[in-house]
Amino acid sequence: MKALHVAVVGALGAVGQQMISILEASALDISLLKPLDIAENAGKTILFRDKTWTVEESGKGKFTDIDFAIFSAGADASKILAPIAVSEGAIVIDNSSQWRMTEGIPLVVPEVNPQALKDHKGIIANPNCSTIQMLVALKPLHDAYDIKRVVVSTYQAVSGSGAKAIEELKGQSKAYLAKESCECNVYPHQIAFNAIPQIDVFLEGGYTKEEMKMVHETHKILDPRIEVSPTAVRIPVFRSHSESINLEFNKSYELDDVFALLSKAPGVEVIDDPAHLKYPLAIEAEGKNSVYVGRIRRDNSIENGLNLWVVSDNLRKGAALNAVQIAEKMVEMGLVD
Amino acid sequence: MKALHVAVVGALGAVGQQMISILEASALDISLLKPLDIAENAGKTILFRDKTWTVEESGKGKFTDIDFAIFSAGADASKILAPIAVSEGAIVIDNSSQWRMTEGIPLVVPEVNPQALKDHKGIIANPNCSTIQMLVALKPLHDAYDIKRVVVSTYQAVSGSGAKAIEELKGQSKAYLAKESCECNVYPHQIAFNAIPQIDVFLEGGYTKEEMKMVHETHKILDPRIEVSPTAVRIPVFRSHSESINLEFNKSYELDDVFALLSKAPGVEVIDDPAHLKYPLAIEAEGKNSVYVGRIRRDNSIENGLNLWVVSDNLRKGAALNAVQIAEKMVEMGLVD
Repeated sequence: MKALHVAVVGALGAVGQQMISILEASALDISLLKPLDIAENAGKTILFRDKTWTVEESGKGKFTDIDFAIFSAGADASKILAPIAVSEGAIVIDNSSQWRMTEGIPLVVPEVNPQALKDHKGIIANPNCSTIQMLVALKPLHDAYDIKRVVVSTYQAVSGSGAKAIEELKGQSKAYLAKESCECNVYPHQIAFNAIPQIDVFLEGGYTKEEMKMVHETHKILDPRIEVSPTAVRIPVFRSHSESINLEFNKSYELDDVFALLSKAPGVEVIDDPAHLKYPLAIEAEGKNSVYVGRIRRDNSIENGLNLWVVSDNLRKGAALNAVQIAEKMVEMGLVD
Repeated sequence: MKALHVAVVGALGAVGQQMISILEASALDISLLKPLDIAENAGKTILFRDKTWTVEESGKGKFTDIDFAIFSAGADASKILAPIAVSEGAIVIDNSSQWRMTEGIPLVVPEVNPQALKDHKGIIANPNCSTIQMLVALKPLHDAYDIKRVVVSTYQAVSGSGAKAIEELKGQSKAYLAKESCECNVYPHQIAFNAIPQIDVFLEGGYTKEEMKMVHETHKILDPRIEVSPTAVRIPVFRSHSESINLEFNKSYELDDVFALLSKAPGVEVIDDPAHLKYPLAIEAEGKNSVYVGRIRRDNSIENGLNLWVVSDNLRKGAALNAVQIAEKMVEMGLVD
């Protein structure tokens, strides 16, 4: 198989930078890296595998020599540029929400539904961060016990809202500790030392867009029969989302088997040792690739109930890493010319 | 009715100080305040309703002239001193976990089960903070629709662990922002910019003591038939606990009726206006007396499902305020000689 030409659109953003670092460490044979970004960043350089690559402005004509164009530049940029990239011959892996629910566009977590990649027509969508980590943990359990219903409450990091949100949490925390007033720009309320039960905009029925993404994307990726009841909450954590997940299965289970299934599931690492106070923690997941699962315990309030605590780095498995793994899986499946 | 003599045991602690400030603002007619604490604090003074009161060491013989002894000095102190106070003629309202599950000792949230006060034998137990705010919100809904099951995930403030935990969060936050290493003394892991899925010690079955308190206290206070599946999580918030609560009712409901019931429920304030980004927030509940309920929305994943976001000041309604309200209710019910 030939060496790949890979473009990264939004190369200088928070996720774009993660993308390039993950591509660098991947086993992909990359002979050309094309970092693309907005005009004002053109001319800057990036070091990748011991070579210097110059950032170009993204736009028409930039994808004619590209195998994979990994997009991380927001929904508006993807809407315009992804079809152009496809028409110029690239396979687009898109990190934005633009194409996720479009019929005919595969929405893929490689550990969960790699087979969906076969039907692609040029664009593959990368799911929402909260959904990815939940489904990596749920897939082996669904295969074994047939999940009926999920009640999930999230504890999400500010890095999901980009670099400005990280600065806002830092700035507000410093101001609050110095007893100065806090400025709110990214979030509608103070996030420092607070919990905000709103992520993204409100939709009909009182749910937020983030919450409904978890419902709809679970249906598209894993199984449309699974009922999902989500509450998405932003907390003052810089990186890694945590999720309190309550499951109801149609089939009965043994707790030992759940531990065994999760321990050998691809992408999952079990951290569950209450005697030594070990469980997944946001600050320990930062910079790592796994989806960490712990607090695994039977829910005695219903038949076939289970509680889990699931943590993963929202910028890696929740975004950049999953996109790179999609490219790797497509190469492995022989889907790249 | 005669003016009351009130002792506060643990008067100089975080909850004790809240207690005295709430007693000060209450309608109770108090002619004697007796602040009690450990020996090293004896001799310090407290200003209460324009008079100065001297802190005495708590112990035998201190309760002979007392009507109400409100205890906030931990389970060990309550175990020894509460029976002494009762034998000397005081009614004990105990904030610790020492007597909560003891048969024959009323465990009371005045808005939920005031009738239990009638059967007291000298000690009345104040429930756990996470349970109190949950049950104040659930009571009117249980009366109307018969709650079958509760799945609750908490977002708890550090002040529940006392003054040292507040200092730990401040110190760790400053150190982290200055890129210095964090010291952990109160919690087993860094709490600054993290989420710790453990509150109190682990028990059998993988649940923590805090989680099992929510199960057992709900059964004792509200209804033993209600199934509760809890996950208790500490987050970097100074004050006020937040709770993501999923309910399943036995009876069907109209969403408008839920809003109406909660809006007129004692102790509850509804904040639910997504169009203006209004919902309960920990930082806004601090120092207030209500249990705030918002994000009220139908859970379409089951029949008769409902999601709520419930926030309250853990040191006030979750501790000191509820204790004072128990005293007020006993006076109102004519249970004090």
